[in-house]
Amino acid sequence: NPNLLLNNNIFALFLRPTLMLTFALLAPGLSPSGKTTDYAFEDLQNMGAKNVCLMTDKNLSHLPPVQTVMDSLVKNGINFKVYDHVRVEPTDTSFMEAIEFAKKGAFDAFLAVGGGSTIDTCKAANLYSSSPDSDFLDYVNAPIGKGKPVTVPLKPLIAVPTTSGTGSETTGVAIFDYEHLKVKTGIASRAIKPTLGLVDPLHTLHMPGRVVANSGFDVLCHALESYTALPYHMRSPCPSSPITRPAYQGSNPISDIWAVHALRIVAKYLKRAVRNPDDLEARSNMHLASAFAGIGFGNAGVHLCHGMSYPISGLVKTYKAKDYDVDHPLVPHGLSVVLTSPAVFTFTSQMFPERHLEVAEILGADTRTARRPDAGPVLADTLRKFLFDLDVDDGLAAIGYSKADIPELVKGTLPQERVTKLAPRPQSEEDLSALFEASMKLY
Amino acid sequence: NPNLLLNNNIFALFLRPTLMLTFALLAPGLSPSGKTTDYAFEDLQNMGAKNVCLMTDKNLSHLPPVQTVMDSLVKNGINFKVYDHVRVEPTDTSFMEAIEFAKKGAFDAFLAVGGGSTIDTCKAANLYSSSPDSDFLDYVNAPIGKGKPVTVPLKPLIAVPTTSGTGSETTGVAIFDYEHLKVKTGIASRAIKPTLGLVDPLHTLHMPGRVVANSGFDVLCHALESYTALPYHMRSPCPSSPITRPAYQGSNPISDIWAVHALRIVAKYLKRAVRNPDDLEARSNMHLASAFAGIGFGNAGVHLCHGMSYPISGLVKTYKAKDYDVDHPLVPHGLSVVLTSPAVFTFTSQMFPERHLEVAEILGADTRTARRPDAGPVLADTLRKFLFDLDVDDGLAAIGYSKADIPELVKGTLPQERVTKLAPRPQSEEDLSALFEASMKLY
Repeated sequence: NPNLLLNNNIFALFLRPTLMLTFALLAPGLSPSGKTTDYAFEDLQNMGAKNVCLMTDKNLSHLPPVQTVMDSLVKNGINFKVYDHVRVEPTDTSFMEAIEFAKKGAFDAFLAVGGGSTIDTCKAANLYSSSPDSDFLDYVNAPIGKGKPVTVPLKPLIAVPTTSGTGSETTGVAIFDYEHLKVKTGIASRAIKPTLGLVDPLHTLHMPGRVVANSGFDVLCHALESYTALPYHMRSPCPSSPITRPAYQGSNPISDIWAVHALRIVAKYLKRAVRNPDDLEARSNMHLASAFAGIGFGNAGVHLCHGMSYPISGLVKTYKAKDYDVDHPLVPHGLSVVLTSPAVFTFTSQMFPERHLEVAEILGADTRTARRPDAGPVLADTLRKFLFDLDVDDGLAAIGYSKADIPELVKGTLPQERVTKLAPRPQSEEDLSALFEASMKLY
Repeated sequence: NPNLLLNNNIFALFLRPTLMLTFALLAPGLSPSGKTTDYAFEDLQNMGAKNVCLMTDKNLSHLPPVQTVMDSLVKNGINFKVYDHVRVEPTDTSFMEAIEFAKKGAFDAFLAVGGGSTIDTCKAANLYSSSPDSDFLDYVNAPIGKGKPVTVPLKPLIAVPTTSGTGSETTGVAIFDYEHLKVKTGIASRAIKPTLGLVDPLHTLHMPGRVVANSGFDVLCHALESYTALPYHMRSPCPSSPITRPAYQGSNPISDIWAVHALRIVAKYLKRAVRNPDDLEARSNMHLASAFAGIGFGNAGVHLCHGMSYPISGLVKTYKAKDYDVDHPLVPHGLSVVLTSPAVFTFTSQMFPERHLEVAEILGADTRTARRPDAGPVLADTLRKFLFDLDVDDGLAAIGYSKADIPELVKGTLPQERVTKLAPRPQSEEDLSALFEASMKLY
């Protein structure tokens, strides 16, 4: 396990859209944030940027990550404008407002400092301002949009994630709530993958406790879902051409290594990260694990926890999430994903019980005497305990849902076929109803 | 361990210059090679290629991988010309001949089918035919060349490796022998990284036994050297700008995972792959491990085995390698690298003895009672046994060298600072002399 952050050694992980990961060498003793961010601005200079769009959300705009970035831009003489109206949990409307800002600004580079909402909003702003004659639905995933391929050149985009996290700095995906249909969907294209990701754990230290927890649950479920996804060689039908190959391939030998590795990190460090904001080793490892979700196993895909999370957050009633300073009801993404995990993995454990036992053991269960039929209950119990220990709300009922909402929750899941088809076993509407019902109460 | 290739399931791994790995789903029962290569040609069609340069070497040009590729190009109506004059272990002259062919051909895409020599030659042909006014030394690494950055757009290049292997399909490096100075050097730029790598183990089945062994030794040493390289945070000096960050960063948390994973594959499968050409599971795993060297830990770097290998192959006298049907003396790359490994790792074990013991244990040593000072001898003995069991020549003397050659071998190593500086401890000329001397006889 990387013990990189003992003493003065601070690292920043630069992710480029290549197969190579490069690390910055930071001399011990230098102010790490400042040094890291100066590196980023040398990157912007090297990209020839003269007019940068800096995107963030209102809460972050006063906090050190953004302040440091702005100081560095000023110091290096790079013009920039700030857009801090990113909506946490974006909608098509909030995307379009950011797009408008970008269209007017004639920017030559984009810089997103924030969580997945900020990075995704920035990806959309870059895309549509580079493709000004396109309709919004042109690039949105079919069937809701037209899912057109991106053929215009985009501006460079540097993503600085401040949560651990969505892994959005590593992906070509931008998710939003299509309010009109009350359904989450997105834009998915390699073209919108950030040019550079700056994965510096020091930029995450201002996350309040519930944000640490919820973004950690996103990493947890990325790992669990990718590891249990339908294997790549069992997907069908075979795509007729490589160009139609989906972004999510199913579990595969490479994603498996990373899913397990990220899971070990979550098992070892998430509680520490939530409980002690100063635990730099824990925070750094969680930040790496978050990036691994994109780099290592993003191509495998996610399935039911994510598919079901979209109506869980999209249909939010009045729930106000502790530690999220927003002016609207909100079920944070990581929470919306993890609440169904005990029920989902009980359901999926019928397929590949050994994997389900393996992840239960990584998460702390004693599986020495467990038999294959035990896999689901053992993993579900382990997850419930893990969630209880991390103060997760007691199921969907605790965030405002009841049995009466199940038909709508199921209805909101059905369009998420892009991910639910990656589950290791198919699921009927009855199956989905049962999963939502079993998720009403966790403990 | 992936047991992907039991029964009818054959996979092909597509490597793109992104952080995502995509897998093709091949229906069981179909002719795998044909199906894989048809996929490649759909890729070429999708790239809009109309006039392809197909590069290979004379031995391969009559074998199934190339034949299948040509059949598929014909079947899909894509024009192509074949260049089969690739020199196994290229020189500046052989690079320039390929470049001339490419300049004349006005190709819009390149397709390399072969080992590292072929893929590297093709990278160079693409580069210089896209940059026709450049001198050859413009892009060659400094100090031998000018090491200029590549600012011209290159044509797409699909690499189909037939050895397991150099991992060249994953890197932006092209190595050659600069005959005038009798020294190996190369061109290193992300720009020359192949657009797509088709890592299909079925294309490796025609490797004769010694080629399987030697290309496997390259994977072995990639893993060992990357894992024991100077850690990324101990390299100095800190680069002044990200653009000057070297391609080889030193060992790091991500490369470590992959180096160990590849090493486990080598430990489990290399002997099987060498001894039984039909062992598809072994051959496939070695092919994956070869790609991992580039994807997973190429950014960490290699050090002394590779640095010292360049004069070992460059100064070859009369040695003719069994199973290599070439008209010139040749020390195959993998052999030139592995012959010094017992001596090198004894030397480096002073630093990070735990890692040296760990890799010895992976390679089969019983290290339960080993203490840290034992690390070097234990690993060296383990390697000697491994090499003996795989019929490796008994040291440098067995390939034509004697103590009298040591000064020249040392002199040929000194310019390889780009890699030797990644060793976990610095080395003087005396140290290098001692290492060559200790490698004269292995058993």
